[in-house]
Amino acid sequence: MDNRVIINEVGLRDGLQNHPTHLPVAGKVKLFTALRAAGVSNFELTSFVSPRAVPAMADAAELVLAVPREPGVTITALVPNRRGYARAREVGVGGIAVVLSATETLNQKNIGMSLETATAECVAVIEEAKRDGVFTRAYIAAACACPYEGRTDRNVVLDLAHRMLLAGADEIALADTIGAGNPAQVEALFGAAAERFGAERIAAHFHDTRAMGLTLSWVALKAGIRKFDASIGGLGGCPFAPGASGNLATEDLTLMLEQSGYETGLSVEGLIKAAELAGELLGSAVGGRITPWFTSDRARREAKLGAA
Amino acid sequence: MDNRVIINEVGLRDGLQNHPTHLPVAGKVKLFTALRAAGVSNFELTSFVSPRAVPAMADAAELVLAVPREPGVTITALVPNRRGYARAREVGVGGIAVVLSATETLNQKNIGMSLETATAECVAVIEEAKRDGVFTRAYIAAACACPYEGRTDRNVVLDLAHRMLLAGADEIALADTIGAGNPAQVEALFGAAAERFGAERIAAHFHDTRAMGLTLSWVALKAGIRKFDASIGGLGGCPFAPGASGNLATEDLTLMLEQSGYETGLSVEGLIKAAELAGELLGSAVGGRITPWFTSDRARREAKLGAA
Repeated sequence: MDNRVIINEVGLRDGLQNHPTHLPVAGKVKLFTALRAAGVSNFELTSFVSPRAVPAMADAAELVLAVPREPGVTITALVPNRRGYARAREVGVGGIAVVLSATETLNQKNIGMSLETATAECVAVIEEAKRDGVFTRAYIAAACACPYEGRTDRNVVLDLAHRMLLAGADEIALADTIGAGNPAQVEALFGAAAERFGAERIAAHFHDTRAMGLTLSWVALKAGIRKFDASIGGLGGCPFAPGASGNLATEDLTLMLEQSGYETGLSVEGLIKAAELAGELLGSAVGGRITPWFTSDRARREAKLGAA
Repeated sequence: MDNRVIINEVGLRDGLQNHPTHLPVAGKVKLFTALRAAGVSNFELTSFVSPRAVPAMADAAELVLAVPREPGVTITALVPNRRGYARAREVGVGGIAVVLSATETLNQKNIGMSLETATAECVAVIEEAKRDGVFTRAYIAAACACPYEGRTDRNVVLDLAHRMLLAGADEIALADTIGAGNPAQVEALFGAAAERFGAERIAAHFHDTRAMGLTLSWVALKAGIRKFDASIGGLGGCPFAPGASGNLATEDLTLMLEQSGYETGLSVEGLIKAAELAGELLGSAVGGRITPWFTSDRARREAKLGAA
């Protein structure tokens, strides 16, 4: 059991929410289907945010209703507040996630709330979900660094996580939102969180902006973490130049874990196909860092088989 | 002292030996100078192989004589055999490296020798260098996997390393020549090597083909290793499709180590400039995985300063 790792696919939410191309529901369902074929069974599917704030997520309810309900497949959605929770609840998601940024400034800039007000709103949502028997995750965003305040204080992160757990959250996702964490810091943060709360209650959400996403994942794995967010094809984020990787790519993480003897239940080949589909649907190149190697390796294998 | 890490720049050797563009000596010296400006003080500068086998290294002697000798700067060169050693010795390199592949087939295919003959040749070179008081490194190539034989047996690698040390080698470089290692394997291999021989006698040489180069480096670092090979701009290797990363990029490794509190003595900014210069000299894009982030971060910083 210690070798089993859950990869929570966030591409349809975190990957698409800021993408310049808005996929229609049918396209999102196609991508979902390709991911299911690759073995993905944990999805953060969408976000019940204001459609004005995030137009790409305006179809949240429609999308939740459009994907099949299957035993063993978990569909969760991000909800920014009680209004969002009510919308998510209406269509019956399997779990919800609230987001609390670890710094005063990021809460102010992102959602126009103070850290204290944002915390109270998260607590209110978690308590409501708990009453409804809905699985709840609480993201602690900017857990490594904040774009406005710099390096984040580990103890602040841990105390916010503690408040979310006290409110009834089932899981804490420590998120390196801007991809600025380094392995020494992540080792200390996840080590402390695992010790204080138990590794089984902690998930990791890394970005690959500075090419450290896999290393951070490995470090968190060594701290006992067994649940990781990733985004197919590295979709999303791209807070910097074109070509800069945003989210950690699902296929990159899967390859590393599988080759290291961990069981993800996912197929790298299937994920690469899903990433290729995402590229076709979005009309732009999509793919993790292993794509050039995999593509050429596949070409060589097919050549050997006489297929190309 | 435990926080000091030596990065051995192999771009001029491993990066250029198979590059389609042959840099003239003047270009190599320019790149060397840019690397010096970035703080690099350990170079594997060239290879005294047969010019017919590796035309890009035909200028080995000329290049060694063309770069300045400075205190604190170590210039080493690869030598495949006693003939190569004699040529290297003539121009007075500061150290030499021999290469022993860990598998029978790779020795046969690469140098047309059996593993046993190749081992004997390495021993002969090391003994000669030891008599001359020249620092010697022995690479164990294909230390994780062989392109012909698959996964490499860890005990074979350790026993070959032991034979090289008994012959008088000062340092063993365990090389994941084809970039097929995974962190679990590297953890076991480097942990065992550090325990058996002492971490201070082991160096790590990783490729980034499957995007795990940084993770493997971190894992080796945690095993106590403090000397790492890297190649400016990720130059070299590219055994697969265009775009597939070959060597681990010096700037990627430096950023991770520096941000984690390790001291490399190198400047990321300076390394990015050296990688840009390498791209200009070679007439093709060169750069590690952090390049898009760094470039756009620099642009934003310069914009803030009113410079762009």
